[in-house]
Amino acid sequence: MAYNYQLNLKSLLDSAVSRNPETPIVYRNERYTLSQFRDRVARLAQGLHDVGVREGDVVAVIDWDTMRYMEMYFAVPMMGATLHTVNIRYPPEVIHYTMKHAEDKYVIVRDEFLPLIEKFKDAFSFVKGWIVYSDQGTVKTSLNAHQYADLLSGPRYDFPDLPEDTRATIFYTSGTTGMPKGVWFTHRQLVLHAQSVSMAGRNDPLALTQRDVYLILVPMFHVHAWGMPYVAVTVGSKYVLPGRYDVQNILELIKREGVTYSAMVPTILYMILSHPSVKEYAQYLKGMRVTIGGMALPTGLAMKAKEFGITTVGGYGLSETCPVLTIGVYNYSLKDADEQTKLQCSMSAGTPIPLVQLRVVDESMNDVPADGKTVGEIVVRAPWLTKEYYKDPERTQKLWRGGWLHTGDLAVINKFGYVTIVDRESDSIKSGGEFIPALLLESAISECPGVGEVAVVGVPDQKWGQRPVAFVVRSGQVDEATIRSHLAKLAEQGKIQKWWIPDRFIFVDSMPKTSTHKIDKKELRKMVS
Amino acid sequence: MAYNYQLNLKSLLDSAVSRNPETPIVYRNERYTLSQFRDRVARLAQGLHDVGVREGDVVAVIDWDTMRYMEMYFAVPMMGATLHTVNIRYPPEVIHYTMKHAEDKYVIVRDEFLPLIEKFKDAFSFVKGWIVYSDQGTVKTSLNAHQYADLLSGPRYDFPDLPEDTRATIFYTSGTTGMPKGVWFTHRQLVLHAQSVSMAGRNDPLALTQRDVYLILVPMFHVHAWGMPYVAVTVGSKYVLPGRYDVQNILELIKREGVTYSAMVPTILYMILSHPSVKEYAQYLKGMRVTIGGMALPTGLAMKAKEFGITTVGGYGLSETCPVLTIGVYNYSLKDADEQTKLQCSMSAGTPIPLVQLRVVDESMNDVPADGKTVGEIVVRAPWLTKEYYKDPERTQKLWRGGWLHTGDLAVINKFGYVTIVDRESDSIKSGGEFIPALLLESAISECPGVGEVAVVGVPDQKWGQRPVAFVVRSGQVDEATIRSHLAKLAEQGKIQKWWIPDRFIFVDSMPKTSTHKIDKKELRKMVS
Repeated sequence: MAYNYQLNLKSLLDSAVSRNPETPIVYRNERYTLSQFRDRVARLAQGLHDVGVREGDVVAVIDWDTMRYMEMYFAVPMMGATLHTVNIRYPPEVIHYTMKHAEDKYVIVRDEFLPLIEKFKDAFSFVKGWIVYSDQGTVKTSLNAHQYADLLSGPRYDFPDLPEDTRATIFYTSGTTGMPKGVWFTHRQLVLHAQSVSMAGRNDPLALTQRDVYLILVPMFHVHAWGMPYVAVTVGSKYVLPGRYDVQNILELIKREGVTYSAMVPTILYMILSHPSVKEYAQYLKGMRVTIGGMALPTGLAMKAKEFGITTVGGYGLSETCPVLTIGVYNYSLKDADEQTKLQCSMSAGTPIPLVQLRVVDESMNDVPADGKTVGEIVVRAPWLTKEYYKDPERTQKLWRGGWLHTGDLAVINKFGYVTIVDRESDSIKSGGEFIPALLLESAISECPGVGEVAVVGVPDQKWGQRPVAFVVRSGQVDEATIRSHLAKLAEQGKIQKWWIPDRFIFVDSMPKTSTHKIDKKELRKMVS
Repeated sequence: MAYNYQLNLKSLLDSAVSRNPETPIVYRNERYTLSQFRDRVARLAQGLHDVGVREGDVVAVIDWDTMRYMEMYFAVPMMGATLHTVNIRYPPEVIHYTMKHAEDKYVIVRDEFLPLIEKFKDAFSFVKGWIVYSDQGTVKTSLNAHQYADLLSGPRYDFPDLPEDTRATIFYTSGTTGMPKGVWFTHRQLVLHAQSVSMAGRNDPLALTQRDVYLILVPMFHVHAWGMPYVAVTVGSKYVLPGRYDVQNILELIKREGVTYSAMVPTILYMILSHPSVKEYAQYLKGMRVTIGGMALPTGLAMKAKEFGITTVGGYGLSETCPVLTIGVYNYSLKDADEQTKLQCSMSAGTPIPLVQLRVVDESMNDVPADGKTVGEIVVRAPWLTKEYYKDPERTQKLWRGGWLHTGDLAVINKFGYVTIVDRESDSIKSGGEFIPALLLESAISECPGVGEVAVVGVPDQKWGQRPVAFVVRSGQVDEATIRSHLAKLAEQGKIQKWWIPDRFIFVDSMPKTSTHKIDKKELRKMVS
């Protein structure tokens, strides 16, 4: 008898439209109110339906942060289909792997990514339909493709009241080993995540409200752009999409649209603040608030941001966790704290956002003391954590051992409840906010004749956060130039990414080993730091 | 494998403690941090368990707004039992009816309400256990009762991970006809309600954050005190409990605790601002923000509040809706609006809070235009609406006809999406924020010999919002004094409340009738306005 209300993106969007029908969403010269956006989403969904998309189908998007992506963030899941946000930082071979693994049925591609697809098009026989678009009108392609603009011609789709546990999104995340792992999220998870992020963001120094103007600077192919497309709609703040990141354009957008808030990895902030023309935009940067995630904010960069009058606040999460777990806003405990303590806490990973249960534990799963010194692993529970690695029960079991999601990240927690990440338990390398899968890269290097043992570690880098350095034990005649040309060839073939190629190669006689005879990467990292 | 996270009050409280362990909760001279409060809740639950309380049991509380009530708001539902917040404004006979109807098994009573229970104790044979308390130590009673303080002696209860659809609360609401109706709410509903209220409250001019000090001035027996016990914990703001409302004490608390925010019915605000010593507290009232609900804020009172520097914001909801549906905060559309428009919108019922779908519809369920003029009925969907009237399928069906909850309230909606209530479709009378069940009162009056037809209507009252006036058609010899003494007797017997007795009795020759031969209450209201 009573209406069985489901937490889905239709509920989120429709309720947001009723509160904030006039909030603008901006991309290049496109400017829609939330109400017009809702209308476009409904017409695009009808277009997708006409092309053949049905409930349960996986629809992939290959794009920068554009209005098209924003539209698909809603239209695809609201139809009951699953949005696959393809990580375009992967090498073509890995992109192909993720698309096949996710069982993509329809793919929406921006023109500049078409060559990549066209080159390997025989390998994409599992795709039933292609939809292409360009900022410059009709797209010519050798694919048998629909034009995105044509999707808009029909009536409005009547979105179903989807069960909240319907899968809404899927994407892939690289660890240290093998191919990327798929993680997926339901409507319920996205709604609850958006609500809790927006609740946490309310506190100083972020103080997010409907008055804010948000510029998205987290790739939309990357963990729901930290959930911000859904958060901004929930909060009702104006939302600005930058397309492909270009620092000059970003600065111009900040000025033109009156941006007050953004979220990004430190590398982007570094690039903005180091841009030759940044001084000309200083007055528009002043007062901005920025959430920093993906990796810790280096103190030097935080100081530089402060000089510009930008307030930086830390945050923390993983692909597996939707992603947000903690934000460094001020809680009641900091009410009477001095500025230095507040600064430290806001630059840490922060405290758990509403509904997150976060523990820092020792190897026996006992909580470590909240003394800001004792290191433990972060384990979590929240309503928005991935239920599994897609089609990978073994890794799922490891991820969820003991009923807590194991982040693999080592941290300390202080007396105010603020968490600081001290090290990744895993040996992953993160460069510019993107993982470099060390084992995949090591395996590529090891294919070069003359290479015996190989190990790649991440070393701190002012701009990129980390950069890879390779240690090599020769098994024959080989030098750095040979390895570099070997890797360049693999990159050309789409097997690895060019930017994965290590900055340095260090030849050693033997590798340091741990007691369990694994290569001691900690020792290697010490050797280069 | 993955942890199946449930939205329950344990999740809400534990996550809040991890963010805000030191936020205080204050009652008289008791002052606990949220972390200490969590500890007390766990020990009290063990005490309740030792007394016999089990999952599924209904535990009633009869109390003012005290720390004991706040503790039971968490301890009882977190055990898997149901908290019955008994409406102490009902006459004893109606209180007894609701307790029997709800199947209360354990009852927690404050000393000053004991005489009421002791007098009728034979009628409470369905109660398995009584727990009594006083602000002044051990309580003497003729009941075979446990002392509340003794509940605290044991270890901490290990709260189960309850399924989110577990019933958490039940209470009763009077309509115009017959006995009050039971409505009940699940853990999930309370969590989602608290989140959305706290999200909406973030916007100006409420701007709620962890820095706020909240004084509860909505009775805790009344629709979850508008959800504020759960909202305050979620937000992390300091929480002050006033006990029984006494205006002098309220003013003193505002001063002593530095109160910045409250929520109340207009009557309470009227009483505060009309208190002889209010001028002495003017500096502490200045800057306070107040959400007004239960009925519309009269303009005169709003002006008076403004003179004191108090910002008032409207809100709207029903017992059936947990209660909050709308709040009059500023949305994006009001960004460039003038102060007058902002004031009007904030004094209206407001816009739907996140996840609420609200429509103003005509009799064919078509939306009325958003012109601020066309009247329609408010119908809603939200994740926290009562699924039914308890044990009353017929009324449930009427409430939920067409899959929308029918509020019975008439409203207009303006171009900014703000709703203004123009009339109650029902003929209920609300005095001081409490319903007076007109039909029950009419039936009481009609029992007086000499009374023929009778109709009670609410007329506007500066202090109480509304007061009842009775129209009587004589069937024999009867005068006002006779009816008054008849009603006084019924009040003494606990059948009606003394404050229900109409302010005026108007004798008429015949009642005006509608086309369907019902008494035309609209016409009667006109006659006295």
